[in-house]
Amino acid sequence: MANITFTFEDSSISPVCVGSRSGERLLDVARNAGVAIDAPCNGNGTCRKCKVSISGRDVLACNTLIPEGDLDVFIPAAAGAFKSDIRTADLSDPREQAIFEKTRADLSEFPAGELYTIETVTLELPSLDDPTNDLERLLDATAAEHIALSAIRQLPKALRENGGELPLLRTRNSILNIGNVTPLGIALDIGTTTVAMVLVNLTSGEILAKASAGNAQIRYGADVIHRIVEAERAGGLAALHTAIIEDTIKPLMRRLYEEAGVSGDTVYRFVVSGNTTMNHLFLNVPPDFIRLEPYTPAFNRLSAFNAADLGLDVHAHCRLIIAPNVGSYVGGDITAGTLASLLWKRSEGNALFADLGTNGELVFGNADFMFTCACSAGPALEGGDMSCGMRATVGAVDEVTIDAETLEPTFSVIGGTAPRGLCGSGIIDAIAELFRVGAIDGKGKFIKISPRITETDDIKSYVLAPGVEINEIDIDNFIRTKGAIFSAIRTMLNAVGFSVSDIDEVLIAGGIGSAINFANAVRVGMFPAIPLEKYRYVGNSSLSGAYAMLLSGKAAAKVDELARSMTYIELSTDPGYMEEFVAACFLPHTDAGLFG
Amino acid sequence: MANITFTFEDSSISPVCVGSRSGERLLDVARNAGVAIDAPCNGNGTCRKCKVSISGRDVLACNTLIPEGDLDVFIPAAAGAFKSDIRTADLSDPREQAIFEKTRADLSEFPAGELYTIETVTLELPSLDDPTNDLERLLDATAAEHIALSAIRQLPKALRENGGELPLLRTRNSILNIGNVTPLGIALDIGTTTVAMVLVNLTSGEILAKASAGNAQIRYGADVIHRIVEAERAGGLAALHTAIIEDTIKPLMRRLYEEAGVSGDTVYRFVVSGNTTMNHLFLNVPPDFIRLEPYTPAFNRLSAFNAADLGLDVHAHCRLIIAPNVGSYVGGDITAGTLASLLWKRSEGNALFADLGTNGELVFGNADFMFTCACSAGPALEGGDMSCGMRATVGAVDEVTIDAETLEPTFSVIGGTAPRGLCGSGIIDAIAELFRVGAIDGKGKFIKISPRITETDDIKSYVLAPGVEINEIDIDNFIRTKGAIFSAIRTMLNAVGFSVSDIDEVLIAGGIGSAINFANAVRVGMFPAIPLEKYRYVGNSSLSGAYAMLLSGKAAAKVDELARSMTYIELSTDPGYMEEFVAACFLPHTDAGLFG
Repeated sequence: MANITFTFEDSSISPVCVGSRSGERLLDVARNAGVAIDAPCNGNGTCRKCKVSISGRDVLACNTLIPEGDLDVFIPAAAGAFKSDIRTADLSDPREQAIFEKTRADLSEFPAGELYTIETVTLELPSLDDPTNDLERLLDATAAEHIALSAIRQLPKALRENGGELPLLRTRNSILNIGNVTPLGIALDIGTTTVAMVLVNLTSGEILAKASAGNAQIRYGADVIHRIVEAERAGGLAALHTAIIEDTIKPLMRRLYEEAGVSGDTVYRFVVSGNTTMNHLFLNVPPDFIRLEPYTPAFNRLSAFNAADLGLDVHAHCRLIIAPNVGSYVGGDITAGTLASLLWKRSEGNALFADLGTNGELVFGNADFMFTCACSAGPALEGGDMSCGMRATVGAVDEVTIDAETLEPTFSVIGGTAPRGLCGSGIIDAIAELFRVGAIDGKGKFIKISPRITETDDIKSYVLAPGVEINEIDIDNFIRTKGAIFSAIRTMLNAVGFSVSDIDEVLIAGGIGSAINFANAVRVGMFPAIPLEKYRYVGNSSLSGAYAMLLSGKAAAKVDELARSMTYIELSTDPGYMEEFVAACFLPHTDAGLFG
Repeated sequence: MANITFTFEDSSISPVCVGSRSGERLLDVARNAGVAIDAPCNGNGTCRKCKVSISGRDVLACNTLIPEGDLDVFIPAAAGAFKSDIRTADLSDPREQAIFEKTRADLSEFPAGELYTIETVTLELPSLDDPTNDLERLLDATAAEHIALSAIRQLPKALRENGGELPLLRTRNSILNIGNVTPLGIALDIGTTTVAMVLVNLTSGEILAKASAGNAQIRYGADVIHRIVEAERAGGLAALHTAIIEDTIKPLMRRLYEEAGVSGDTVYRFVVSGNTTMNHLFLNVPPDFIRLEPYTPAFNRLSAFNAADLGLDVHAHCRLIIAPNVGSYVGGDITAGTLASLLWKRSEGNALFADLGTNGELVFGNADFMFTCACSAGPALEGGDMSCGMRATVGAVDEVTIDAETLEPTFSVIGGTAPRGLCGSGIIDAIAELFRVGAIDGKGKFIKISPRITETDDIKSYVLAPGVEINEIDIDNFIRTKGAIFSAIRTMLNAVGFSVSDIDEVLIAGGIGSAINFANAVRVGMFPAIPLEKYRYVGNSSLSGAYAMLLSGKAAAKVDELARSMTYIELSTDPGYMEEFVAACFLPHTDAGLFG
């Protein structure tokens, strides 16, 4: 038994010392000791993010075995303990805000205030002639059937304090609280990479606070497949559940409560939209069979249950509603998002709704039919898996043009600060521009010489600004992402007897950013070459849909209906998909005729 | 600010040191410091049980104010921290057992096994042709609508382990568990003085373990009025709630789980029967208005809710059912007990059901009508408020005869041990015999000289055995108890136009003990002088009724129906009651003609 001591570049983290046997894998020892080391590839040796230092020598924690004797391990900040990284900026972006407000207006048929109402009833006080007990008196006057235990505790004194006048919070059947309280709700979008949350006044729909954060599970793998593999390991499921509940959601909730100056015991409704794997991990349900043929989730649709069962700091009667999944790779984020996209309202023509996160999911159809499928896009569009990537938040380059002669860039930065990295729309622009000006070829390799293009270890990079570079590995990652999306669109349409010319509207959702330039997205072959006016960015439709479900039981019922009416197309068993994918892994496409 | 140090005769309790201001009441300082001192009169200076020692001098904690300077307080074992005093003996008494078995047989129309069933379903495993998710597959096959979160977590792996064969625990609408588990339930009778609990197999009705204990609230007052007064003090309600949940019920549950070798997460149903005040304190609901005109409880009937809301160690979906109250002083113990008494089945003639605990409650009627009322009997029949009193458990004298010449007693002791005290039936016998042989007069004062009769401080005692005496204060307490009961019977019958001659059967329940001698109970004027064959002892009917409600939803519905059909008579506002009571406080009665 040797002692392993972890020290951290981040001086706010105290050293950790654990016992270990020689021959154990350093990454596993660290994880078991609660020392989080970033490993989005889940220890396969491919992402190289778990670089730590032993006696001044850099090693990958994932392929280092514990030697005989004691060991000091230094964790540099880059590989260090994942921080929940809570931000409010991206949700405050006025463009995102405008899109959200439009969605609210579009969904006005599902108004707030029907589920939870505040009313004042006046009861006769008990007398010797009518000594009816307090509760029966209240239930008779309100035609309610149930009452929360906490409200029974409030009832006797409140009844007599104001001569029988009782302000109360109720649903149609239940009394939830006695006294003046504003009922709150939380809508939560659990993305594989990013988690977003809003705290809402349930009677008015007003948003009291909002925030987003990285999903702390990312240290166990960047995509859902890596997470499922981790969940299959002993203790893995519990670790992933803890990462999302304790390290991501609870800190976000505390932040929102603090910002709004409220406490959890006034939160009565909680709606979650996430992909199928995220839903499983959130509930601590084994996701194993999602990734194994025949790709079967443990559940798609769940009845509401008590949020307190998950240990969340909310009222004991807070209902937790999970937006329903359609299948293994089309989850509640897509069903909730479809509600927000309004695709289901289109009576003529066909719309394509695409949510481009770490997974890409597509819905094609209209009021009469809906097909859906998924592809593994990877986190490139959300800033993951890219040396220069970041979310569409303050400091992110979101628009880029490059001069054809000098290769000098012109760009805009969210928040107007110095550039810290590129978000999805910035990456699309940068690569489209590099391709347009002939700096890179169809395979994404640099073919021009310029002071802006540097080379390290045989890998060339374009320097957008000091510290903000985009290299050939990044471009290759992006090409596989855009290839997966484009080939998924083609394969699904083909499978159900349609073609891209049948698309009358394209609704793009996800963390790419509101600055997305659709001309560039078509130029790189991510989206089909159809008239640009058909494209529209609809923001975080998963969160918008969850917000609608939070305020309205009818909206939640509508999402349930949408989930049941979608036909799931499994691309991975479609023999044409792999061929389409390989053909699409080129700028813009190996069949250049598609982009005439 | 002075330091008060509490040390304990019971060496297992560590000393406690707290700061205090001079002038505070010692009993309050002790309570606030978590030092439990027995004070059944709730600090009124009447019970004299809170005797503690300061510098070797005995004082009552309730009427001692903290002086200037530090203070050492010695708590003798007699006044010391209440111990939950868990016993299984009284419930194992073969006579009580026989009564319980008879009640079970009488209630066979409410069989076990309808609420919770164990079944095995066989599901087709998912395939590419039918990849329906696991949950939908299960709900379709079982026609269930809901599933416990814990069961969803079990489902994916269990489904595939045995080729689709799934053993499960369900109710009509819900799947509660996957795998082989025996569903358990708890029936709990919360008496003011004694708490009894049984752990039951919900499918077979088999009793796995049973135990009883003193109600730890007793240190805040012997009867419900004292408890309510305490609850009105700042922090009082929380202290009483803690006393019943943490100090009484949880230790009993742990004991039962240990004895049966089970864990709380297989307990799915929990039925509580208790008087109205006990129900309020159990749920932490202010009982204040129970004792104030117009005597209004916060609730009578409650829908079932989650037992886990009270922090009890049970399954997250364990339903908690409270037997309904009828009014402020007729609670769930009486409605559940009425079910067990079978009074509601009598199609001809009238029965009187009397539950004689710390409160005495009466139900008079038959299948067509029921009247009910309550009187404050005091805990004399359960061993409280008597220098020699104890519950009907091992060591209790439960039958006594006294030789008319020598005054020498002959007695039997439960368990055949040396006598430790007298239970209710023993007290009735002893006083009836002392009166029969002329040792005491109608006022309960000793009027004979004998070596068996001693005197201390002007108070005379009859020595039954070394350390087991019955004194004039005890007899006086008993006379008030039996007077309250007798006058309540007369007043209620009179109020509804009946007389004792209309009683065809008397069903006596409560902690008096199965050895009750009805001839003696009539001789002392506790019960009316009607033919003795009309009397029957029915044991702990509250617990029997709760047990029936535990096993059968129909039994629970029947109790609800009984509660709604009872007409509550408020004796305290009946002008004749006080007169009747005063007349009955004599052996056997001031109107000797009533006892022929």
